[in-house]
Amino acid sequence: MARVAIVMGSDSDLAVMAKAIGVLKEFGISPEVSVASAHRTPDKVAQFARNAADNGIQVIIAGAGMAAALPGVIAAHTTLPVIGVPLSGSALHGTDALYAMVQMPPGIPVATVGIDAATNAGLLAVAVLALNDAELAERLCDYRAQMAARVEKCSEELQERL
Amino acid sequence: MARVAIVMGSDSDLAVMAKAIGVLKEFGISPEVSVASAHRTPDKVAQFARNAADNGIQVIIAGAGMAAALPGVIAAHTTLPVIGVPLSGSALHGTDALYAMVQMPPGIPVATVGIDAATNAGLLAVAVLALNDAELAERLCDYRAQMAARVEKCSEELQERL
Amino acid sequence: MARVAIVMGSDSDLAVMAKAIGVLKEFGISPEVSVASAHRTPDKVAQFARNAADNGIQVIIAGAGMAAALPGVIAAHTTLPVIGVPLSGSALHGTDALYAMVQMPPGIPVATVGIDAATNAGLLAVAVLALNDAELAERLCDYRAQMAARVEKCSEELQERL
Amino acid sequence: MARVAIVMGSDSDLAVMAKAIGVLKEFGISPEVSVASAHRTPDKVAQFARNAADNGIQVIIAGAGMAAALPGVIAAHTTLPVIGVPLSGSALHGTDALYAMVQMPPGIPVATVGIDAATNAGLLAVAVLALNDAELAERLCDYRAQMAARVEKCSEELQERL
Amino acid sequence: MARVAIVMGSDSDLAVMAKAIGVLKEFGISPEVSVASAHRTPDKVAQFARNAADNGIQVIIAGAGMAAALPGVIAAHTTLPVIGVPLSGSALHGTDALYAMVQMPPGIPVATVGIDAATNAGLLAVAVLALNDAELAERLCDYRAQMAARVEKCSEELQERL
Amino acid sequence: MARVAIVMGSDSDLAVMAKAIGVLKEFGISPEVSVASAHRTPDKVAQFARNAADNGIQVIIAGAGMAAALPGVIAAHTTLPVIGVPLSGSALHGTDALYAMVQMPPGIPVATVGIDAATNAGLLAVAVLALNDAELAERLCDYRAQMAARVEKCSEELQERL
Amino acid sequence: MARVAIVMGSDSDLAVMAKAIGVLKEFGISPEVSVASAHRTPDKVAQFARNAADNGIQVIIAGAGMAAALPGVIAAHTTLPVIGVPLSGSALHGTDALYAMVQMPPGIPVATVGIDAATNAGLLAVAVLALNDAELAERLCDYRAQMAARVEKCSEELQERL
Amino acid sequence: MARVAIVMGSDSDLAVMAKAIGVLKEFGISPEVSVASAHRTPDKVAQFARNAADNGIQVIIAGAGMAAALPGVIAAHTTLPVIGVPLSGSALHGTDALYAMVQMPPGIPVATVGIDAATNAGLLAVAVLALNDAELAERLCDYRAQMAARVEKCSEELQERL
Repeated sequence: MARVAIVMGSDSDLAVMAKAIGVLKEFGISPEVSVASAHRTPDKVAQFARNAADNGIQVIIAGAGMAAALPGVIAAHTTLPVIGVPLSGSALHGTDALYAMVQMPPGIPVATVGIDAATNAGLLAVAVLALNDAELAERLCDYRAQMAARVEKCSEELQERL
Repeated sequence: MARVAIVMGSDSDLAVMAKAIGVLKEFGISPEVSVASAHRTPDKVAQFARNAADNGIQVIIAGAGMAAALPGVIAAHTTLPVIGVPLSGSALHGTDALYAMVQMPPGIPVATVGIDAATNAGLLAVAVLALNDAELAERLCDYRAQMAARVEKCSEELQERL
Repeated sequence: MARVAIVMGSDSDLAVMAKAIGVLKEFGISPEVSVASAHRTPDKVAQFARNAADNGIQVIIAGAGMAAALPGVIAAHTTLPVIGVPLSGSALHGTDALYAMVQMPPGIPVATVGIDAATNAGLLAVAVLALNDAELAERLCDYRAQMAARVEKCSEELQERL
Repeated sequence: MARVAIVMGSDSDLAVMAKAIGVLKEFGISPEVSVASAHRTPDKVAQFARNAADNGIQVIIAGAGMAAALPGVIAAHTTLPVIGVPLSGSALHGTDALYAMVQMPPGIPVATVGIDAATNAGLLAVAVLALNDAELAERLCDYRAQMAARVEKCSEELQERL
Repeated sequence: MARVAIVMGSDSDLAVMAKAIGVLKEFGISPEVSVASAHRTPDKVAQFARNAADNGIQVIIAGAGMAAALPGVIAAHTTLPVIGVPLSGSALHGTDALYAMVQMPPGIPVATVGIDAATNAGLLAVAVLALNDAELAERLCDYRAQMAARVEKCSEELQERL
Repeated sequence: MARVAIVMGSDSDLAVMAKAIGVLKEFGISPEVSVASAHRTPDKVAQFARNAADNGIQVIIAGAGMAAALPGVIAAHTTLPVIGVPLSGSALHGTDALYAMVQMPPGIPVATVGIDAATNAGLLAVAVLALNDAELAERLCDYRAQMAARVEKCSEELQERL
Repeated sequence: MARVAIVMGSDSDLAVMAKAIGVLKEFGISPEVSVASAHRTPDKVAQFARNAADNGIQVIIAGAGMAAALPGVIAAHTTLPVIGVPLSGSALHGTDALYAMVQMPPGIPVATVGIDAATNAGLLAVAVLALNDAELAERLCDYRAQMAARVEKCSEELQERL
Repeated sequence: MARVAIVMGSDSDLAVMAKAIGVLKEFGISPEVSVASAHRTPDKVAQFARNAADNGIQVIIAGAGMAAALPGVIAAHTTLPVIGVPLSGSALHGTDALYAMVQMPPGIPVATVGIDAATNAGLLAVAVLALNDAELAERLCDYRAQMAARVEKCSEELQERL
């Protein structure tokens, strides 16, 4: 049973949202993935969100662009933590999606990450799950250490190149 | 039975949305008014929108601020024309609400008016209803003529003052 | 006799505005289409708008970019509902056209849709006409159902792909 | 006969536009002042603009806020130079008016000054008229010299104060 | 031992951040509260973040304005979930803080809530903790139900008032 | 002797500013063209501006990008009308240049046209010169008529194509 | 002889720029202070900047609002480091001044600090001078330590209050 | 021993930051160059900044994109002058990095240059070092003179071309 669900407003969003799937798999987590639209399939979204906890989901990642209501509408139907990924690709370069996600009214939060920042959405889900999963917590520390090591290696390579 | 419904996300929105009520009443239209939140009372919003047409509603006006999902979520549950009023009052001065309303995905339009422009929302509802209500159409012409006359009178008074 | 008129500020706008023509034709509505500029052919625009109702037009869709005065100027000369499509393509990516359209003064509303959102302009016109055309109302319901089905099919295909 | 006409979209704009009247009067120019709205009194605006040159007007100053179509619509009906003053006071703080004025399509320019910058609109009108009015040109030089002297005096007073 | 830590960049931020303290207390959670600045006391921030997990902290809420580096710098030193509250109050009305928080580079997420949205930061922390605290989960459901009831009551009162 | 001077901050600006040269030549006006930078050659700019009137120049067009001080600095050294063309091409898409040009302090106006709108700058210069040049005024009317005719022809061709 | 000069575009800017004077005085530096405008007194600005180095000035701080050309124009006439303080107070809340200052063309840098951030301008000047003034460098370290201590004290007081 | 250090958040930033290296080398200054991330390698950044002065560094240039905390975090650990280069390349085109850099809290300044303006960062470092290096000061004057000559030559070539 999946612990993380990833929902996106359109299948064209997969190009970005695949980064969230990828990073979760790196941590041994197989997310449940679906396409659902707050505006085109509102009943499916509501039903998905209401059943998520009973289906074993602990964290929901929702990516959407433009008037990006998806994560907020999901959050309206569940008390699980919902992570929102505002997607660019519109004329407003994702500021529309960012504002439509992050500016939730008091009472219903959406944990918003950066524009197109699906990798960070995945890592935030891991951080939440790691609170009660010591192995995951350790892996997250390793991930950070490897990331730091990569930066260090880049720095060394850069100095050689110059 | 009301032909126009006005929904607002919070009762504090009444200060602005009252302008829509007022202008509709000037045209002899008594709107049905309610408070409902796409995020705090999502089921009520869905139910309201699904039943609106059967309840005789022809046009829905929805005012909301911040991540203003209300008109879009209503539009997701009805094929009636939905007019959105983005409300200011947040740190982003209503650009958040404007973007969250107007940038709807293809398939589900929201007829968006200006920030806090509840008067225009009311007039747009009148214009839609007037398509099949000759009396209303005539009143709308009169309203325009009076408005023009007021501008003209202002101009004359200004010239006297200077 | 056409029930919907589509006006655009320049023939280069056709690339976007064709989506409005297309969606209207899907619903069996043949719009009257013309190029007219609020700034370059102001008299033609005024004459068009003043005569629109007498010519059987019920809804006007106007697309324009930059200092996009076209829908507002049309609305100034008619009480018919006017739908504005702000077009991108300028250095300001359509925020200029959006602000120039949606921020109408009290008294003369423009029903503004998203930047380049000509499909939604067409659907909004259909929604308005459907208020008094039961067949159109039914088609609009079908359109929505098919759209939802396509989202669902995308979701299934996505799950197979992953 | 007035050489400069000042038009504003609403009499509430006088608070700002009075600065243009004042600076013109300092130069001995009595402007013709009126209220007219591109959206509420479009025919009056068109007629005013078409007749302006015949009425002896050489420069037109137009101030408007929000979807500030006024100077552009005036410019559409005359080849006289039109100076636009975008007014703040809306939720968008005048960026709406600025974009709606300055981003005119190729063919119909509006000489736009800063937000609420009615003084500069008046001075720009003076600069245009001064091209063929040697006395005015001299007064403009004096005005500049006095302005520079005031800055210098402020600087001296500041140094004394510190 | 506190499960949630709240850090703010300046004591003047308490006016907003108090909402997070308040909502946590409503859920029976006593947060650890401190003032620390990523720029003025960087070592204190690093030490706090490095020790947070060992000190029993499970979720960190960080509020800051302007070049709001605080939540990101904390996140750099811990793998615990970090919730960022961008604060307004600068000339840029909080867009500076929002961008400085939400646009984290891949690898180090910050769960960003709306501008000044400290209540939602508190509720997001509760939602995370509730994943492993059935009582908290139940209280969160109750909170939601009461919130919905309040909206409903507002709606009824509004209808009586009109 | 040239009546119009065109100055640009860099020779790479010619791609845009050539439109101003072109439109002036259409009207039989040969502008004086030069490259000068408010920041890199400030003395040349000051000298140019101070001598412009004596050299027979009546209108100055200045195009610049980024922190586009050029038209304002020219205006500081002459009382001739100065037309500013904000150029895009920076990361801020010309909003930097627009703000740096249009927001002049009271006392020194710059007649700002749209971003990259060099054609309109040329036409505005023509409109100013036409105030005292009946032939030019007539040509400007013809230009407008031809422009309107082109729009009309586009409209007809569009209708044939559809 | 003053080592730091502070220039401001208008004496009304003193309210903000006084913070730079104050912080410099805390470090025992008496700045030379004057009012000069890139647009109203361009020759004075040029002369000031050209003579600054010979007058013993090592760092120049320039504060200006709107189309804030002052620091850039000063930098055009000297190779001394120029620190720019964009001032708010216009309709654009200082974004105009920020863009007009920071977006300098390649070749002539302005060291820009935050909107209204005159304190930081003063501290940056101190940091530059401290490179060759060991006493100043030590004082700057003390300043930092006291600042950190104040933050720590605020934190303690906050914890007592709660 | 290097007098200038250049730090960048990612090796992909080298494309822009190489301009700073290049301009420094033109002036005979070999900068120390490294990759370090305020978020991915915070300890390395802190250590680098704390040791910079002892390592002979006099000026630090830091380039970063998005939530660009790097220059601010460096500035938090040293009293040396820190020059920040906000990098574009994100969905927000560098406004995120600009705001995250320039809007530092009172007490810790970052000398911010334009978006991607690494050349100016290098020149600003030269200007600071030139305060105590007469040869460098002379070279900077020559650089300016050559730059002015290039502009003049462009102007002449342009006039020949037209």
